Amino acid sequence: MKISQFFLPTLKEAPSEAQVISHQLMLRSGMIKQSSAGIYSWLPLGFKVLKKIEEIIRCEQDYIGGQEILMPTIQPADLWIESGRYEDYGQEMLRIKDRSNRDLLYGPTNEELITDIFRTHLKSYKDLPLLLYHIQWKFRDELRPRYGVMRGREFLMKDSYSFDLDMNQSRLTYQKNFLSYLRIFSKLGLKAVPVKANPGPIGGDLSHEFVILAPNGESDIFFDKKLLEFESISKDIFLDKNLVEKEYNKWAKCYAVTDDIHNEKEYNKLTTPENRVNSRAIEVGHVFYFGTKYSKSMGANLINNKGEQLPVHMGSYGIGVSRLVGAIIEYSHDDKGIIWPENVAPFSVGILNLKKGDEYCDKMSELVYQNLLIAGLEVLYDDTSERAGSKFANMDLIGLPYQVFIGSKSKDNGLFEIKERATNKRYFLKLESLINHLTEKFN
Amino acid sequence: MKISQFFLPTLKEAPSEAQVISHQLMLRSGMIKQSSAGIYSWLPLGFKVLKKIEEIIRCEQDYIGGQEILMPTIQPADLWIESGRYEDYGQEMLRIKDRSNRDLLYGPTNEELITDIFRTHLKSYKDLPLLLYHIQWKFRDELRPRYGVMRGREFLMKDSYSFDLDMNQSRLTYQKNFLSYLRIFSKLGLKAVPVKANPGPIGGDLSHEFVILAPNGESDIFFDKKLLEFESISKDIFLDKNLVEKEYNKWAKCYAVTDDIHNEKEYNKLTTPENRVNSRAIEVGHVFYFGTKYSKSMGANLINNKGEQLPVHMGSYGIGVSRLVGAIIEYSHDDKGIIWPENVAPFSVGILNLKKGDEYCDKMSELVYQNLLIAGLEVLYDDTSERAGSKFANMDLIGLPYQVFIGSKSKDNGLFEIKERATNKRYFLKLESLINHLTEKFN
Repeated sequence: MKISQFFLPTLKEAPSEAQVISHQLMLRSGMIKQSSAGIYSWLPLGFKVLKKIEEIIRCEQDYIGGQEILMPTIQPADLWIESGRYEDYGQEMLRIKDRSNRDLLYGPTNEELITDIFRTHLKSYKDLPLLLYHIQWKFRDELRPRYGVMRGREFLMKDSYSFDLDMNQSRLTYQKNFLSYLRIFSKLGLKAVPVKANPGPIGGDLSHEFVILAPNGESDIFFDKKLLEFESISKDIFLDKNLVEKEYNKWAKCYAVTDDIHNEKEYNKLTTPENRVNSRAIEVGHVFYFGTKYSKSMGANLINNKGEQLPVHMGSYGIGVSRLVGAIIEYSHDDKGIIWPENVAPFSVGILNLKKGDEYCDKMSELVYQNLLIAGLEVLYDDTSERAGSKFANMDLIGLPYQVFIGSKSKDNGLFEIKERATNKRYFLKLESLINHLTEKFN
Repeated sequence: MKISQFFLPTLKEAPSEAQVISHQLMLRSGMIKQSSAGIYSWLPLGFKVLKKIEEIIRCEQDYIGGQEILMPTIQPADLWIESGRYEDYGQEMLRIKDRSNRDLLYGPTNEELITDIFRTHLKSYKDLPLLLYHIQWKFRDELRPRYGVMRGREFLMKDSYSFDLDMNQSRLTYQKNFLSYLRIFSKLGLKAVPVKANPGPIGGDLSHEFVILAPNGESDIFFDKKLLEFESISKDIFLDKNLVEKEYNKWAKCYAVTDDIHNEKEYNKLTTPENRVNSRAIEVGHVFYFGTKYSKSMGANLINNKGEQLPVHMGSYGIGVSRLVGAIIEYSHDDKGIIWPENVAPFSVGILNLKKGDEYCDKMSELVYQNLLIAGLEVLYDDTSERAGSKFANMDLIGLPYQVFIGSKSKDNGLFEIKERATNKRYFLKLESLINHLTEKFN
């Protein structure tokens, strides 16, 4: 994509309403535009990142047997009355009356709808286990939406729902999803920490939040530093349920909790002093076994192999997709701008033509651009007439992993400068090596 | 995907509320489940088709320079008051009050939001032409939602908006989008007819609906049969604006109108008797130049090369993505079920193991399945213990382009029967030829 043809409305200054760095940087880099309080339009650069995150999640969910569906945004109130949550949910639920005066709502979550799908279509233990997920916009009418897309009102979420015959099978499903989440966050370039969360009235130990450390986070967590040092999860683990359980236990037995269930005594017992970390953190995912809560109230039963009718055991697994865009920026930026992890970067390489109008620079920029495109890379080429300083600042701001500078100096020695955004490492390569080098990085 | 692991809740009988064949077949094949009146959940099979249609549209929109963004579903009433449409829109607009008593609405369309984005960020003729599109859920509170996803309340739409300096440039943009739409529908396996539509108070000749012929259609059109015989649009046409104009004129000068603007005299003058067709049709797309309607009321101006401030010229281009799923079925089915065009089929090939439990059949089915997967095909393998008759009926119902039958007869001669769903053509091939044959079909 050439910047001259790309809708990329960058700003020199962040609007004053943006309090946190991710919100400032998203506005400055032209990723989003606020439409109303807590509601945003995603402009081309932001949209690309959102789609990349979606695709990474989709890929990993499919790998563990998830099947993608899509439930609507508008739900009937009836189902929520049936589950008993309609009144409980309070003012964060956007309640709507249609033209025939029927009560609808904009879904803040989908337990009721998915339970209704299950009870309509599934009857036998032979249909299990089942893991359904969708990636859909949701709405929570926050009183004070803030922090940009991190705490918006209309937000994109991936939520999965699992159906199992009993608690034991649900536990295995839970463990798989837990490990799948670790893979997802790792692919997104994040070190996520799974912390035990308050399971509320459901009880049990099957409730974890996945958080990433960030000073602007709304959560306060206490955890064992070992969790940051574990290797990422191999795909092969999912082939054997004993491996799943072993790997899960390695993570789950480490001390890591949100502050509301922090226990100083246990903390001291389970961790060594040098490994104790207390930090602010951003919640980016949540896995939760809720058993028969909805299947009982809504009559989602199935027949087991003895012919008995039993309520199905369920769990839910959420990831805040739009929130992650902000969270990744909180986690990965410097004073010049965003530093995108390679897998979610809207483009892999930025080309800066430092002397637009110069025959050599124009020709070489175009050549590098075309060659990288042919190699299958996503490239943003700054072909504008802006001055070099402004191009440097802009490219740092939008944070693509690699920058290639093409100026008249290259004419003398045939060498082009490359800069790695994350490390600020700079080196010079000839045209062919440059193409090969960047192509290898992204294959 | 193996059917034993696939959430595919097919039904023997269509529920009585489904009046049209597409709705019946979508329910019977487990593609959708109604959530409330005119609102549906998309189950795995339906979701796959929806995504395929989306991807074909995306690909063609990008080719003509469209840039994808995503506007929210919930819009502030303010913008609609500014454009003057808030009161006019009537009861089909789902009006909402949030917890702070602010007026919101679920977007039925996006002219206001996109004009707001434009006026915020774009100021100069140098930023033009610009074509932005998004694929997003919309809501129209139909009094009597019917025909399943063809006339639902919550529906998925691709809408593009173009911005040009003047009428002349807008005309070229219009022509490009017109031709791009013909490419899209052709890729979807449809013969779409572009018919002149009433431009309303805007006037002019730049308003076309794209319709497909179907007895259940809500439109009544009169057109010249020549339009069904033109070749599909080559990509190269877009490289030259003279070619665009010439090709556009070829289509646009043929008589084709909706009944409200039908003119018998002109019809008789412009068509030969044997070419006159009057048919019911389903609207699947609409392209429309509306000039400065929104830019004037909302102050979306830009500076031209003489330093003058002028309202930008706009057009909009919509495709009903979720409606298309139903429309394609109306267009392509028989008494046994759906007949998917190859590009939108949820899977390309269905494998029927006709003797589950038989060592040879199980082994060969698995072998064919794995080989087709490795070749990159999307395959649905019926590995269940259902009887053969039921498998035949089910596979015809869900309408995959190719079926491969694996029964004990193949043991004797090493030949497997293939059936083409659309033509009912049947032939026998050896394993290797079968893999090559199907792989070639989809490359």
